[in-house]
Amino acid sequence: MLKLYYAPGTCALATHIALEEAGASYEAVRLSFKSEDQKKPDYLKINPKARVPALVTDRGVITETPALLIYVAQTYPAAKLAPLNDPFALAQVQAFNSYLCSSVHVAHAHRMRGYRWVEADDDHSIAAMQKKVPQSVGDSFRLIEREMLKGPWVMGNDYTVCDGYLFTLTQWLAGDGVDINTLPKIADHFRRVGERPAVRKAIEDETRQLQSAA
Amino acid sequence: MLKLYYAPGTCALATHIALEEAGASYEAVRLSFKSEDQKKPDYLKINPKARVPALVTDRGVITETPALLIYVAQTYPAAKLAPLNDPFALAQVQAFNSYLCSSVHVAHAHRMRGYRWVEADDDHSIAAMQKKVPQSVGDSFRLIEREMLKGPWVMGNDYTVCDGYLFTLTQWLAGDGVDINTLPKIADHFRRVGERPAVRKAIEDETRQLQSAA
Repeated sequence: MLKLYYAPGTCALATHIALEEAGASYEAVRLSFKSEDQKKPDYLKINPKARVPALVTDRGVITETPALLIYVAQTYPAAKLAPLNDPFALAQVQAFNSYLCSSVHVAHAHRMRGYRWVEADDDHSIAAMQKKVPQSVGDSFRLIEREMLKGPWVMGNDYTVCDGYLFTLTQWLAGDGVDINTLPKIADHFRRVGERPAVRKAIEDETRQLQSAA
Repeated sequence: MLKLYYAPGTCALATHIALEEAGASYEAVRLSFKSEDQKKPDYLKINPKARVPALVTDRGVITETPALLIYVAQTYPAAKLAPLNDPFALAQVQAFNSYLCSSVHVAHAHRMRGYRWVEADDDHSIAAMQKKVPQSVGDSFRLIEREMLKGPWVMGNDYTVCDGYLFTLTQWLAGDGVDINTLPKIADHFRRVGERPAVRKAIEDETRQLQSAA
């Protein structure tokens, strides 16, 4: 059975949602970043990058959200989570996921993980990065609002893996100092994705595991 | 005909290489970042992100290297540039491309484009980011050397789009202050990819256009 390693509040939720949308059989395994589970030897054998998500399959481990989302779509084709056989349409899905991964998530990461790009004890630079997050994350979301979110779903009429991924990153907006009410299409999308049974199930799974661990 | 917008010295070379490996008919259109061509109104209509690469197809524009690489592989299947019908193997290709895009390229970008994540006039933070690049880029490449590059090609016996992409980012190592000789598998891979006719052709195209523009 598939085993998804995740930590609460991370982008792993996008893959968790995709697995639920696909109707997959899987086990979700919670890591605590507070306890630095992701740096422990047992987990580094699964993912030497010390990150989540990681999906253990019967053939080996898969990491990186954009890769996992297409993997889930391809292994559960009946769920129609991506236009797999239309190269141009699939490229639009992939371009959207890649933008979330390499631009939006990266902008967000400068709030909590600035030590990746400057020395951890450089208080000035760490604070300077945090200060810019509302603008850099806000600019990214304004571009999505204006140019990318076709409506009603990201890719138009069909729900795809892009929607659960955008939902996951939209959850971070308040913490990043961006007012979702300035982004009406994003706000509407966030509300509608959050009402989907698969999305509620994935979030409840993560919340329940968190409570039982507390 | 396909039209690839690129700028010299950027990650657009990875798509340029893939198009050559695929035997595609395409036109390569050079942008000058020095002249800020990527911010001009005509180009913003093609790619509102003001970045390269962008590929104009008869159905519309595709952006983001990981999306473009799979698009090229999928539209030129005879070139066998990715294991399209093996979801697990394709996920490994995608995870590798995603790591290059969201971790390696991002680490590198802190040398020249720190203004994305702090105020442009914050000399201390800009310099602090530049100073960390040899370590952050070096750490990423050491992980690739140790855990990801299977040999002889990234994915093992078969050349894939990952190889041209890794080659493209390996070109940046010297400028990023990382000695390629400390990475013997990467150095050997770089030399072998650089000898491929398609790779030489893509580089010669970009060099020739640069000379004729000078």
